[in-house]
Amino acid sequence: MPSYNPPLRDMQFLMHEVFKVTEAYQQMPKHADVDADTVNAVLEEAGKFAANVTFPLNISGDEEGCHLDQATHEVTTPKGYKQAYQQFVDGGWPALSCDPEYGGQGLPFVMNSALYEMLNSANQAWTMYPGLSHGAYEALHAHGSDELKALYLPKLTSGEWTGTMCLTEPHCGTDLGLLATRAEPQADGSYEITGNKIFISAGEHDMAPNIVHLVLARLPDAPVGSKGISLFVVPKYKVNADGTLGERNPIYCGGLEHKMGIKSNATAQIVIEEAVGHMVGQPNKGLQAMFVMMNAARLGVGNQSLGLTEVAYQNALAYAKDRLQMRSLSGVKAKDKPADPIIVHPDVRRMLLTAKAYAEGGRALSTFCALLIDKELNHGDEKVRADSAELVALLTPIVKAFLTDNGWIATTACQQVFGGHGFIKEWGMEQFVRDNRINMIYEGTNGVQALDLLGRKVLGNQGASLKKFGKLVAQLVEEEGVNERMAEFINPIAYLGEQMTKFTTEIGFKGMQNPDEVGAASVDYLRVAGHLVFGYLFARMAQVALREIAGGSTDPFYQGKLQTARFYFAKLFLETATLMRTARAGSQVLMDTDAALA
Amino acid sequence: MPSYNPPLRDMQFLMHEVFKVTEAYQQMPKHADVDADTVNAVLEEAGKFAANVTFPLNISGDEEGCHLDQATHEVTTPKGYKQAYQQFVDGGWPALSCDPEYGGQGLPFVMNSALYEMLNSANQAWTMYPGLSHGAYEALHAHGSDELKALYLPKLTSGEWTGTMCLTEPHCGTDLGLLATRAEPQADGSYEITGNKIFISAGEHDMAPNIVHLVLARLPDAPVGSKGISLFVVPKYKVNADGTLGERNPIYCGGLEHKMGIKSNATAQIVIEEAVGHMVGQPNKGLQAMFVMMNAARLGVGNQSLGLTEVAYQNALAYAKDRLQMRSLSGVKAKDKPADPIIVHPDVRRMLLTAKAYAEGGRALSTFCALLIDKELNHGDEKVRADSAELVALLTPIVKAFLTDNGWIATTACQQVFGGHGFIKEWGMEQFVRDNRINMIYEGTNGVQALDLLGRKVLGNQGASLKKFGKLVAQLVEEEGVNERMAEFINPIAYLGEQMTKFTTEIGFKGMQNPDEVGAASVDYLRVAGHLVFGYLFARMAQVALREIAGGSTDPFYQGKLQTARFYFAKLFLETATLMRTARAGSQVLMDTDAALA
Repeated sequence: MPSYNPPLRDMQFLMHEVFKVTEAYQQMPKHADVDADTVNAVLEEAGKFAANVTFPLNISGDEEGCHLDQATHEVTTPKGYKQAYQQFVDGGWPALSCDPEYGGQGLPFVMNSALYEMLNSANQAWTMYPGLSHGAYEALHAHGSDELKALYLPKLTSGEWTGTMCLTEPHCGTDLGLLATRAEPQADGSYEITGNKIFISAGEHDMAPNIVHLVLARLPDAPVGSKGISLFVVPKYKVNADGTLGERNPIYCGGLEHKMGIKSNATAQIVIEEAVGHMVGQPNKGLQAMFVMMNAARLGVGNQSLGLTEVAYQNALAYAKDRLQMRSLSGVKAKDKPADPIIVHPDVRRMLLTAKAYAEGGRALSTFCALLIDKELNHGDEKVRADSAELVALLTPIVKAFLTDNGWIATTACQQVFGGHGFIKEWGMEQFVRDNRINMIYEGTNGVQALDLLGRKVLGNQGASLKKFGKLVAQLVEEEGVNERMAEFINPIAYLGEQMTKFTTEIGFKGMQNPDEVGAASVDYLRVAGHLVFGYLFARMAQVALREIAGGSTDPFYQGKLQTARFYFAKLFLETATLMRTARAGSQVLMDTDAALA
Repeated sequence: MPSYNPPLRDMQFLMHEVFKVTEAYQQMPKHADVDADTVNAVLEEAGKFAANVTFPLNISGDEEGCHLDQATHEVTTPKGYKQAYQQFVDGGWPALSCDPEYGGQGLPFVMNSALYEMLNSANQAWTMYPGLSHGAYEALHAHGSDELKALYLPKLTSGEWTGTMCLTEPHCGTDLGLLATRAEPQADGSYEITGNKIFISAGEHDMAPNIVHLVLARLPDAPVGSKGISLFVVPKYKVNADGTLGERNPIYCGGLEHKMGIKSNATAQIVIEEAVGHMVGQPNKGLQAMFVMMNAARLGVGNQSLGLTEVAYQNALAYAKDRLQMRSLSGVKAKDKPADPIIVHPDVRRMLLTAKAYAEGGRALSTFCALLIDKELNHGDEKVRADSAELVALLTPIVKAFLTDNGWIATTACQQVFGGHGFIKEWGMEQFVRDNRINMIYEGTNGVQALDLLGRKVLGNQGASLKKFGKLVAQLVEEEGVNERMAEFINPIAYLGEQMTKFTTEIGFKGMQNPDEVGAASVDYLRVAGHLVFGYLFARMAQVALREIAGGSTDPFYQGKLQTARFYFAKLFLETATLMRTARAGSQVLMDTDAALA
């Protein structure tokens, strides 16, 4: 059975030593009283919940899965899931970063992000139940009428009810413009919703007495395509004006998918038969309203893979120290044992360090982004809010795609460390790989993220947002350019930063002649951008570590950080050399292939 | 549900047009009468068996799995498996490339390899039952006494009985020197075997009346480590002198593993309690005898991933042509439809072509290797036999590791083409990914293959074997160096070939100072070597295609082959640029990491 220890030290290093979040909170009226003790106490409790409550249910939940009663349309979650959820609610965790107006604790998003990393390490499938609720909370909070907010937000904040996002239909996933669910206006201002949704995560379950579905549908007179989509709240049980539950709304689970992973999350087919719904936001502006939820969800998906990378790494490290097999090539290391622990082998270390570097880089990015979101929402200076929003928009597809692809590489590598045991269910490693697989697909496939990054976020504003990030890199280069000990961390990002500008301009020009050039380069481009961001963050982490060591610290944490950063630049960052070449290979080699793909 | 069409055209292209196998067979007395019609007829029938008999059982077999009756120790395979196996036996397939002296058909290994590619595409887990039998056949054929051969080979040849390889124990996988199973000599010349084995594929089942276990064990006076291991045949039912079955031998299935994939193959814990065994080969030379089987098995594992890559590709291609979603960036392509098929998107083509290139490169390597094995075993010229054996030894770890890692990349990419549907069991794509995962682990992890390649096969003879392969590359470069149309295929391998020599020498020198340098570079080195081999093979395929087109052929197959080769060099081969740099990063960045891996 695997184990999990919340990585509190690394979280605190990032929050307090690298990004100095509490200093930043001084500039945010809502968070000015958040001090380091509060942050640390919350992290510690969150870690205990993840490690002690949901982690022990991870393997058993995967084995048991969810079960649908075809007669009642009710879904039973695996043993212990409901109780764990109740403990989560009792602990006040759903309310952590919610608005105090609706009963929330109003704490920063940085803390919510750390909470979710640990929950995802412990049990991604379970975590999706509260995770999607929080997404529904955010969409309603941003776009709901005061009446809807008063009715739904307190229950979503407390966690008494959960929420979903009902977007996908059998014939439309990425292309929501094709969706066919209908919404008929009723005399009382409500709507009658009819349609079929698929792939609805946490779509039905026994963990809460009501489920608040946010459903995309079309009004009768709506324009075709994505400009004719509206958003509706369609609760499982209708809600009376006093907040009590009314009668059952005909929005049912018609079936559960049998999947590769996240088996204990109910992936529901949702049948909607003239159910009562209420519009959220404006008619035909549903996609914009839903994007609030989708952008948060995309960051959340990156966080899922970060969690899996961390827990896979911890277990592979422990196994590599324990498993005796063969001798070190450079001479016997454990003379008193029949063989050396496999951690003596360079390639085993390569696999472990790959996972460690992707976990630490991912955590740095996740924390960096979460702080930007706090600034975007709450900073006292409007310019800072706008700049932060722009960076968050730029980084969102990178967080989603880069962290989930890295999660695939990392969990696979950690599974490989276990040899044959990695393939066996009881060790838990294969589940991390299977669970991670969906992260590269849902909330917009990683290919779609790459188009979003290169086409919309970078070329869409002639590289302005990218330049904003580039300035951060340039600033660090300038700050540390004369520091010889930083050269090994600064030179690669200074070089890549320069290359990136040329590279982007080049693709931009080619793309103006032929838009397929953008599509052909986009996936490679996103990985290059991801490494520029990780490189910048590793350099910042190394900067702090070097300062601490220079200041006399003998804490091995800082040496470890430097070793991980060195490994990262020597072994992982270098793939940018190939990626820039493959991106430059252009579209013809892909598109002039009709005979090959006949 | 997925579909499968045997890739007969590509197999025939490789056999008849690229490698001209029947010309080669003229130089092999045993195969001199094998003509193209025979080859093609066998391939066609083999393809029908795979597509019609075992492929339809692939998903249902995965869902049902194997079941152990704890009381009787008997294992039931999924519905239809036993019947399919009987059809396989009735069709004479197990005997295809077996020795006619024991009832075999004596056909070349090239044909057996093609048969197995198709069986693996259809159902890897089922195919492992006859696949391991063939391995047991080969080990007994090479090392068994005449008496053992007479008793066992006819039944293994016909497929009436199946076989296994019992190597692994709980505390020893890669490091067989640690194994503890004991063999006590008995007065009658037999041995009494006692021990516990794990991870025994096809270790127990209901498909045949007897199972011939080949078991590694230690004699009482054996030296410690891998030099004290002997090989024994330990049948499930003892065999009377007349070949009939005797009493049950105490070699039992003690448990079945619950695994990520290949769920319909029984991965058995085997308990051996004073079972009767007979020695195969010489005392304490069991590992050498088993290596016959392991080398064949390693090529077979590469072939498994080749099969999965092909079937995943076929289904992703069909889906990409069928699934309508979004419009092409370069303008609407399917005006009469609500959206364009997703194959219009450059990145979807990238994923498809990645799988296609890895399937076709893998098939070329598999066929090339199989022909070398035919030459090694049967060529009239001793020098050719020796050279072929040397090349097979060099290529074996590349086939095993490069094809299985490529299979992981390819099946994952094909799953991604399906978006959310790729994660759902009924589409079959996720099973290809799960089944492929074990191929990177068993029969020696891919890390072990990399050490075998660089440490033993390359540096172990100062690069002599590599030079032999390099000569083939040089010969092609010379042949086609002045052909402008071949330049795009020849230049990259000419360049990499030169680099490879320097690169290898460099690592060799570093390795003499510190053997960990070899371990640190090995995995990257293997992928570079894999691309040199694939590059060579794609150039040879392009050579034939260009000649046919120049000769007036309008068969789109040849255009498709050129397009695939162009894609391969532009998008996949290029990773060698990064791999040579990461390999050169050296061991310190991996080994000086105790603080990071604390």
